[in-house]
Amino acid sequence: MAGNTFGKNFTITTFGESHGKAVGVILDGCPPMVELSVEDVQTELNRRRPGQSKVSTPRDESDKVEIYSGIFEGKTTGTPIMMMVFNKNQMSRDYDAVKSLFRPGHADFTYYSKYGMRDHRGGGRSSARETIGRVCAGAVAKKVLDRTGTKITAYVTQVGPHKAQKRDIEVIEDNIIRTCDLDAAVKMEEYIIAAKETGDSVGAIVEVLVQGVPVGIGEPVFDRLNAKIAHAIMSIPAVKGIEFGSGFEAVLMRGSDHNDEMTKYGFLSNNAGGTLGGMASGQDLVFRFVVKPASSITIPKKGIDIYGNEKEIITEGRHDPCVAPRVVPVAEAMTSIVLVDLIMEDKAIAHYFK
Amino acid sequence: MAGNTFGKNFTITTFGESHGKAVGVILDGCPPMVELSVEDVQTELNRRRPGQSKVSTPRDESDKVEIYSGIFEGKTTGTPIMMMVFNKNQMSRDYDAVKSLFRPGHADFTYYSKYGMRDHRGGGRSSARETIGRVCAGAVAKKVLDRTGTKITAYVTQVGPHKAQKRDIEVIEDNIIRTCDLDAAVKMEEYIIAAKETGDSVGAIVEVLVQGVPVGIGEPVFDRLNAKIAHAIMSIPAVKGIEFGSGFEAVLMRGSDHNDEMTKYGFLSNNAGGTLGGMASGQDLVFRFVVKPASSITIPKKGIDIYGNEKEIITEGRHDPCVAPRVVPVAEAMTSIVLVDLIMEDKAIAHYFK
Amino acid sequence: MAGNTFGKNFTITTFGESHGKAVGVILDGCPPMVELSVEDVQTELNRRRPGQSKVSTPRDESDKVEIYSGIFEGKTTGTPIMMMVFNKNQMSRDYDAVKSLFRPGHADFTYYSKYGMRDHRGGGRSSARETIGRVCAGAVAKKVLDRTGTKITAYVTQVGPHKAQKRDIEVIEDNIIRTCDLDAAVKMEEYIIAAKETGDSVGAIVEVLVQGVPVGIGEPVFDRLNAKIAHAIMSIPAVKGIEFGSGFEAVLMRGSDHNDEMTKYGFLSNNAGGTLGGMASGQDLVFRFVVKPASSITIPKKGIDIYGNEKEIITEGRHDPCVAPRVVPVAEAMTSIVLVDLIMEDKAIAHYFK
Amino acid sequence: MAGNTFGKNFTITTFGESHGKAVGVILDGCPPMVELSVEDVQTELNRRRPGQSKVSTPRDESDKVEIYSGIFEGKTTGTPIMMMVFNKNQMSRDYDAVKSLFRPGHADFTYYSKYGMRDHRGGGRSSARETIGRVCAGAVAKKVLDRTGTKITAYVTQVGPHKAQKRDIEVIEDNIIRTCDLDAAVKMEEYIIAAKETGDSVGAIVEVLVQGVPVGIGEPVFDRLNAKIAHAIMSIPAVKGIEFGSGFEAVLMRGSDHNDEMTKYGFLSNNAGGTLGGMASGQDLVFRFVVKPASSITIPKKGIDIYGNEKEIITEGRHDPCVAPRVVPVAEAMTSIVLVDLIMEDKAIAHYFK
Repeated sequence: MAGNTFGKNFTITTFGESHGKAVGVILDGCPPMVELSVEDVQTELNRRRPGQSKVSTPRDESDKVEIYSGIFEGKTTGTPIMMMVFNKNQMSRDYDAVKSLFRPGHADFTYYSKYGMRDHRGGGRSSARETIGRVCAGAVAKKVLDRTGTKITAYVTQVGPHKAQKRDIEVIEDNIIRTCDLDAAVKMEEYIIAAKETGDSVGAIVEVLVQGVPVGIGEPVFDRLNAKIAHAIMSIPAVKGIEFGSGFEAVLMRGSDHNDEMTKYGFLSNNAGGTLGGMASGQDLVFRFVVKPASSITIPKKGIDIYGNEKEIITEGRHDPCVAPRVVPVAEAMTSIVLVDLIMEDKAIAHYFK
Repeated sequence: MAGNTFGKNFTITTFGESHGKAVGVILDGCPPMVELSVEDVQTELNRRRPGQSKVSTPRDESDKVEIYSGIFEGKTTGTPIMMMVFNKNQMSRDYDAVKSLFRPGHADFTYYSKYGMRDHRGGGRSSARETIGRVCAGAVAKKVLDRTGTKITAYVTQVGPHKAQKRDIEVIEDNIIRTCDLDAAVKMEEYIIAAKETGDSVGAIVEVLVQGVPVGIGEPVFDRLNAKIAHAIMSIPAVKGIEFGSGFEAVLMRGSDHNDEMTKYGFLSNNAGGTLGGMASGQDLVFRFVVKPASSITIPKKGIDIYGNEKEIITEGRHDPCVAPRVVPVAEAMTSIVLVDLIMEDKAIAHYFK
Repeated sequence: MAGNTFGKNFTITTFGESHGKAVGVILDGCPPMVELSVEDVQTELNRRRPGQSKVSTPRDESDKVEIYSGIFEGKTTGTPIMMMVFNKNQMSRDYDAVKSLFRPGHADFTYYSKYGMRDHRGGGRSSARETIGRVCAGAVAKKVLDRTGTKITAYVTQVGPHKAQKRDIEVIEDNIIRTCDLDAAVKMEEYIIAAKETGDSVGAIVEVLVQGVPVGIGEPVFDRLNAKIAHAIMSIPAVKGIEFGSGFEAVLMRGSDHNDEMTKYGFLSNNAGGTLGGMASGQDLVFRFVVKPASSITIPKKGIDIYGNEKEIITEGRHDPCVAPRVVPVAEAMTSIVLVDLIMEDKAIAHYFK
Repeated sequence: MAGNTFGKNFTITTFGESHGKAVGVILDGCPPMVELSVEDVQTELNRRRPGQSKVSTPRDESDKVEIYSGIFEGKTTGTPIMMMVFNKNQMSRDYDAVKSLFRPGHADFTYYSKYGMRDHRGGGRSSARETIGRVCAGAVAKKVLDRTGTKITAYVTQVGPHKAQKRDIEVIEDNIIRTCDLDAAVKMEEYIIAAKETGDSVGAIVEVLVQGVPVGIGEPVFDRLNAKIAHAIMSIPAVKGIEFGSGFEAVLMRGSDHNDEMTKYGFLSNNAGGTLGGMASGQDLVFRFVVKPASSITIPKKGIDIYGNEKEIITEGRHDPCVAPRVVPVAEAMTSIVLVDLIMEDKAIAHYFK
């Protein structure tokens, strides 16, 4: 598989290009008898939809999903679920100017090098529109996780120098930044708008909190819960790093600080971030990842074309000055998918024959 | 596969417990006609061997590898290569005391929860001895990478608060920390020894530099080069975070800073860390990961036993106060394996039918 | 993956139910730069379309395929190719009567047992309409095989007691049986029509001939060319057996008969059917498979319903009295997919680093 | 993976060459808490051991297995189980004469073509000694199947023209042919010995009977129980065909004969051979496969050497005039492995969230 499939048991394969006919996903391996409606999926998709606010791209896509298979009388049947969104507001003309250019920070150069050609319209397959399929599948994963009482919440904790000072997860959907601190949200928004006005973009940090992870989930050695999560999250466009629990701060800690003590009532701290030996300890799973400033900016930068000529390049089009708010549902989706996949793996291997 | 296999084309499966008979690996998918000797493998193993220096565990294992299959007349044959090291200095008695204890920071609790039992001797399968198989396979991967001129170098860049101030990769094997700055090495060593004397352990950061990565390696979407590397590195025991290029610093950058400009002579910066859209750009691949302070310490900490009773627990035995120097060859091994795997994937998919 | 995906490098995942919205396939891993038009796919689909002749079901489906991704300016891009056919002539009413029945010879009982529910309309996922996705992907595989000069031809060699007496592959598309002997075709047709008139169905044998197989294709041990072909062909509904070269006749042969002698000009016989040790010898790949008489008949048979009550059951609806003619393109598709998959595997593993 | 791995959940990877140091297997994914002793494995190995009788090769290998990992205090731990047999009676000298020859019916030519080299000693990796690893893993699978009450029995039903006239599975281990009819055994043995005396070999048919298959096992579409079994069995050296239930006889049947009727007390016939739509119906799983006459004979046949020169070739060494009796335990092993693998798959996907 050429990298468009993720998951071993709960398996998604995404398809589609930014300016092709459609983008979507096949989900194979979903357990049967899970109640699922189009609205369940649409609700999640609306959260990543463009044009939601002044900090996201004005590209106007309604992103209406349809489910083409795998559902019967409102329930999953255990057969592949295909979900798709037609591309509408494509405006391919916008992109003709970049046909022969390798835009700095974009995948133009590597796609062209690898495949000998590329669909240059709006990033083609490398467009973040690919993540629509992920969000659709994630919506199904969330329904499955309802059964184990597992809840996933992602939120922005830093934009530029502005950090959230608290973790108020109730307010996340109440602010356009999707941060967990309404005071910080104001500063973050101002910071993003200021960058946008100069044609620039900004970076951010997103935290993911998973409550109710079944103990023991994750396979030892290579398919650790944290390793699979890292794989999943690092596969989201623009993500450049990930850390669990105390993360990079652990460099300054000692074993006597970092080891999470256990009592009969539970753990006394969560430096590990929810895993021990790669398996879920039953604590909250907590990790953070950094999103680079979006590559699409209108400030001219040095690049080359396919003939090797140097060019000053700006990225025309409609872009997000900060992608983090729209990455939030994508991160939740990928985390959900990993969790269901590993719950199923665990069921197959560890618990069955007890 | 229950998580003990990694790689799709160049595929390793490790086996063995800390205090079982042996630890090793099967490598399937190695191209034929690669010259390979036992010494090639032993050289890498010696770098991760315990007992190398005063900052590593005194457990005395010679870790002599044998190759049981897949080699004929000094060359790989294209069939599975099985490499194994017998465990010698096992001292299982050391571990009887922990038979019913869940040591803080260890995988005891999660293994027991998942499997209903565990080989409690020295961590069993969760022991870092499992990484011996990885280093063996990595030695083969390095031989394969000689053919593409790809060179992988890992080194410690921070121990506690002490950072390497330069990147002198020539000196890495000349100091027991395996850092790239001999001045920093002195301070790092003192810092580790001081912690060791109190029965404690310390954290560190390791950087990996890959030169000569073939352009286009890595599959778009889920099997990006950086996502696969993240998966591989996060699967190493004690690793808690990873970042590429500018990494978490990107939160403070703008697109106009972060985008790496291109000229006809190459890139002008490397904030991306060597990938664009998940595929190798031909720049150096650069990433860093953090290693938590080792969980095995002799400072008493609160834990519980399998009956739920609270206990003050210290981890007897012989342990590393800082695992980073011995993680260096493991990180190189995993990086090599990912690269060969993706080179083979690329060959299968992108270039063949051109 | 819950069994809806096939192939490791050239990977297909099919989706869709008989009476759902649509059926289709995602193909991941197709090499880039392969010329591909909708017509290339439609031509193959037309060969499996219902309603072609008096020996196939009168269900009238135009089965018009659309390609939703992975093609740009008439060429494959190396990204996933999604192809889909909308279901039109569904007539779900026909199936209401069987809602609670387990029809003899059908998958009703096993689906219900496995999933706790089933889409009872026309077999749902177990319908042969699922093979539409396979044929679409096979059409792409055939285009790829043009590059290696590999040609796949399937044809009916026996219907009931009537055997083809020659192998005239030029006439296959000239007769509705898709046999390789026009004289036999007459008898086969009469035999089928006679069964149809009594509401019954008949069995058949199909042979597949592959010319121009690259030497060495197929992986030793488990992923032998013949084992992968057997897997692929046995996954086609109604297939109950497969044999290669001399096949079951080998029971009566001796080694001195069966061993295919080699001269400098090539092999003197082909009892092996084109493989040695599981890898292509460069001879024609030749195999045969048997297709059981279709389960859907209007002759009443004993069955039970989901409550355990015994019922006399006939299968209403429009069905094929002999499915072999329509299985022919499906067998070609599956064979093509296996071959491309193994050519890619071979390229990745065996030849690259020579 | 280059074809040396089989199974998705209960996953085996075999390694080793005929005349290398050892042959063996890693089994990953075995459920924990399964009681397993070395004797359990040795008992199965002894059934495939050479030198058992006058109808098998006189190569004298004791084939003593050792278990190197994955077992603790007599039980599986859920970690990889490595089992290995050292090669002893290698006699590599026997094979020097064939160093540059491509023996008819052997894999010499295809290995050389694929890899550019081969371990020519006794077939190297293509030797049937590779199946030792399979039998070891199969012994573990059988232990797992004890829990579901599933019993697998293979036996020879035909050697040359001599067919078993009954199915007396109690006598299989009482005759050196491993057939299910002691009268037929006499004729089969005479037939084999007669061929052996002329330096020739003979073909055979083996039947496999599985009782107590859990209903619903097998994934629809590509990973059908019968398709996976076909893959597994066709991967055994010398197997040239497989059929389920009525098999190739179905060509002569009508739907009204072939459909297995159901009553409240069960099925009235078993033409399907135990599956419906690729999933286990709960009936006995019954299939047959043909084993070609062994390629190693001492009757001279035409072949070529690696330089293209024509040679009269005989295969020196110690060989089986009929491999079927020793294939019996291999077939049971592969069948066991497929069943456990699919039971685990089913558990992961279908039943968990009910």
